[in-house]
Amino acid sequence: MNYRMILYLLGWVLNIQGLCFLLPVLVGLFYGEAQWQFYALMALASLVLGVLLILKKPKRTVFYTKEGFVTVALSWLMMSLTGAVPFTLSGEIPSFLDAVFEMASGYTTTGASILTNVEALSHCALFWRSFSHWIGGMGVLVFLIAIVPLTGGHIMSLMKAESPGPSVEKFVPRVRQTAFILYSIYFAMTVLEVMLLLAGGMPWFDSITTAFGTAGTGGFAVRNASMGFYSGFSHGVYLQAVVTVFMLLFGVNFSVYYLLLSGNIKKALKSEEVRWYAGIVAFSIICIAWNICTQPGSGDRFGVFHNAAFSVASVISTTGFATVDFSRWPTVSKFILFVLMFIGACAGSTGGGIKVSRIILLVKSSLREIRAIVHPRGVNVVKLDKKRVSEDVVKGTISYFILIILIYVVSVLVVSFDHFGHHPEYDLQTSLTAVAATLNNIGPGLGLVGPAGNYAAFSPLSKLVLIFDMLAGRLELFPMLILFSPHTWKGSLGAIKRRLTWKKEST
Amino acid sequence: MNYRMILYLLGWVLNIQGLCFLLPVLVGLFYGEAQWQFYALMALASLVLGVLLILKKPKRTVFYTKEGFVTVALSWLMMSLTGAVPFTLSGEIPSFLDAVFEMASGYTTTGASILTNVEALSHCALFWRSFSHWIGGMGVLVFLIAIVPLTGGHIMSLMKAESPGPSVEKFVPRVRQTAFILYSIYFAMTVLEVMLLLAGGMPWFDSITTAFGTAGTGGFAVRNASMGFYSGFSHGVYLQAVVTVFMLLFGVNFSVYYLLLSGNIKKALKSEEVRWYAGIVAFSIICIAWNICTQPGSGDRFGVFHNAAFSVASVISTTGFATVDFSRWPTVSKFILFVLMFIGACAGSTGGGIKVSRIILLVKSSLREIRAIVHPRGVNVVKLDKKRVSEDVVKGTISYFILIILIYVVSVLVVSFDHFGHHPEYDLQTSLTAVAATLNNIGPGLGLVGPAGNYAAFSPLSKLVLIFDMLAGRLELFPMLILFSPHTWKGSLGAIKRRLTWKKEST
Repeated sequence: MNYRMILYLLGWVLNIQGLCFLLPVLVGLFYGEAQWQFYALMALASLVLGVLLILKKPKRTVFYTKEGFVTVALSWLMMSLTGAVPFTLSGEIPSFLDAVFEMASGYTTTGASILTNVEALSHCALFWRSFSHWIGGMGVLVFLIAIVPLTGGHIMSLMKAESPGPSVEKFVPRVRQTAFILYSIYFAMTVLEVMLLLAGGMPWFDSITTAFGTAGTGGFAVRNASMGFYSGFSHGVYLQAVVTVFMLLFGVNFSVYYLLLSGNIKKALKSEEVRWYAGIVAFSIICIAWNICTQPGSGDRFGVFHNAAFSVASVISTTGFATVDFSRWPTVSKFILFVLMFIGACAGSTGGGIKVSRIILLVKSSLREIRAIVHPRGVNVVKLDKKRVSEDVVKGTISYFILIILIYVVSVLVVSFDHFGHHPEYDLQTSLTAVAATLNNIGPGLGLVGPAGNYAAFSPLSKLVLIFDMLAGRLELFPMLILFSPHTWKGSLGAIKRRLTWKKEST
Repeated sequence: MNYRMILYLLGWVLNIQGLCFLLPVLVGLFYGEAQWQFYALMALASLVLGVLLILKKPKRTVFYTKEGFVTVALSWLMMSLTGAVPFTLSGEIPSFLDAVFEMASGYTTTGASILTNVEALSHCALFWRSFSHWIGGMGVLVFLIAIVPLTGGHIMSLMKAESPGPSVEKFVPRVRQTAFILYSIYFAMTVLEVMLLLAGGMPWFDSITTAFGTAGTGGFAVRNASMGFYSGFSHGVYLQAVVTVFMLLFGVNFSVYYLLLSGNIKKALKSEEVRWYAGIVAFSIICIAWNICTQPGSGDRFGVFHNAAFSVASVISTTGFATVDFSRWPTVSKFILFVLMFIGACAGSTGGGIKVSRIILLVKSSLREIRAIVHPRGVNVVKLDKKRVSEDVVKGTISYFILIILIYVVSVLVVSFDHFGHHPEYDLQTSLTAVAATLNNIGPGLGLVGPAGNYAAFSPLSKLVLIFDMLAGRLELFPMLILFSPHTWKGSLGAIKRRLTWKKEST
């Protein structure tokens, strides 16, 4: 394990976070809020420590996948812990565990909150929460790769560990340029959304934070009623529709936008993943709208369709904004949303969940088993976009799926020991969806953690489990599992032991 | 596709069922119930048709896995349809769809019932329901293999399609002898249970039907309160404890009993699957008992432990008997039971579910992905009982897991369109567990389909889906999927077309 190199990279991450802390400082100064000083303090602390760590560039840059995954996991843990400090120092979230939950939820673009009243927060705290979505959406190490000239074989393993999807696509031969293109598209689309929201009469502060939440597919809102708040606006439906469209757009594989920009429109439209994604979205909206319309007193049809589309876009893109409390919807609708939580967005987007391309690979790889029985001597490969998928990617996808279900079951088991004094059906639904909504980085679930609720009532143990789930989900399991796997540290412990024995022997 | 051979085998299955119909005839005559005549009629019809089909032995005995799977799927469909006729003829279950549901539930050893009052049924109907568990538990084609001297390469593919587990173990080189040994152990253990129940004061009729239900891990009871009825007996706890132990025993891989009988005790006790099975059972009982004891007014500790043990044994062995209404238990307990439904019993037992050995393979195959990242150049195979598992078996297991989840999700989606006028949480739980309890062949779920409820309220469409799920679950998916897969019939349709064209041309 190349510890020196890991520390060097962590130093860079601290520097970036230090610079990020300056933004809420500006917001605080602008609104005349005293809380800016806590962010300034953290900016200073991060930058001092960060600069110290990057002063000496390590000579040995040997770096394997294992180190890449550990670096990414440690970076995200560190960011969640340090990012939470201003909340507790300012007293806005007195419990540090709650603050870490909120921050992990921000960076992992989950959007699950322990706050009961977000409107009571200062502007700098609200801005910091939403901005963490934006940074977390595309990834801090991807940002690092885009701006810092790193060399060596380690860059790809960092990108692999932080980018969502079964395999990383490079648009251009150089990783650094790819990262830069990704962030450029990301930035441009965010700006476009802000402009469209401003055009609909949304205030500046709301527009920017909402765009951050949409772009990162995060879901923190600056209003207690989430996007439902803007229903009172004269252009409320327009504003919500803009968010619906952008949530869906940020859930699409960014390689599609790159293809579009480079004029390869035909290839972009033929993406199998995007077609499945669109199909699932359309199917879900129709089913839910139909299901709600058959209920008595469902209201006007356009409104039902509008809210169904918003909720489906919000859940499949794993954003988590809400216009209505979908935890009060009938059974079919709730079940579809529950399944969408696991499906998630496209690979290579800012969304979470298992990812549509993985679902396609899972379905295709299991259907070929039926073909293998019927035609035992036939050729039997899995194809995506008409290209053969390597067996290693299929195997990795399957392991991913099994591991996510294992982590899900164990987490629900722990979380379900909490009970909230409601009827047991309610409690079971809360536990089942709280874990689904954090592990897949959505935010709101059903029951107690529905759009109208929050995560405040969970026990500290449950909160720790959910924090782990959010990080594991955002980093696609392996970085967190490798960080906590004894295999990873076996060699290192041996090396430390050997060194100690050697020192003893030499004295 | 060798149609002649498939029909020949279906003929044998009809003959066996014809003979089975004679048992409820005897019961009816013994109790002086008029319903015996409907069973006699079906016995006659089955035997006449069956004998006609086996009169001419097919010359071409070529038979592939595909044909084996189709034969098994057709046999079970045919048995469920014909077995249901006496229920409707006698008017005891007026709706034929309900009767088929009940019969499919019987043969597949599910034990899910659409009846609200089983005590109103005649003795011959009750006997027939329970006896179907016994036949379905070990399998009708395995029975056929054991008693009829079939030749050709087709026997193994029939056994493979009907026996549960990722791979079929042959105790002895000859398939026929293996099948015979299996049925002998099965018969002996059933007799032993009957004797132990009689010793505790259970009436003859109840003892025999209960033993059938336990042996097949079915779960149809002859009392409305299931095994809870015997709580009123002076030796009630003893009777329930006997059933607990036998449910667990029938959930064990029968190869363990064969090893024990052949004196290979050491090897039997070292079975990795049985150890995991025992571990899961112990862990679940402790968690549930603890969870219930922390609730106010949970009653005496021995009673809590007794009922927890009974319910865990009932669910993991996929039997489905009940002493208490576990759908009223607290969240953790319900969630554990829900997970146990999917885990199921050991491979090579009469139980359903995914099977413990598959779970072991799934866990091990996904953990090796973590090892592969940490040690990219290490040897990385999956082992079970210290023997290397072939990649084909691992792949089959994984496909099985993905397919069962796909079928589960689609089934819940259809079933959740039903609503029962309760609060939505209750409906969601009912849908989620109704499908889990039928697909994994348990019987009772939670909510409306809990031990105190039944499946009567579902719509006809939902009942059809649940019937499919029961058959798919018992036959381990592939036979039913292959029966309904267009791939299977592609060649055959072509052949029929060619023949028609040829006839036209020749005229």
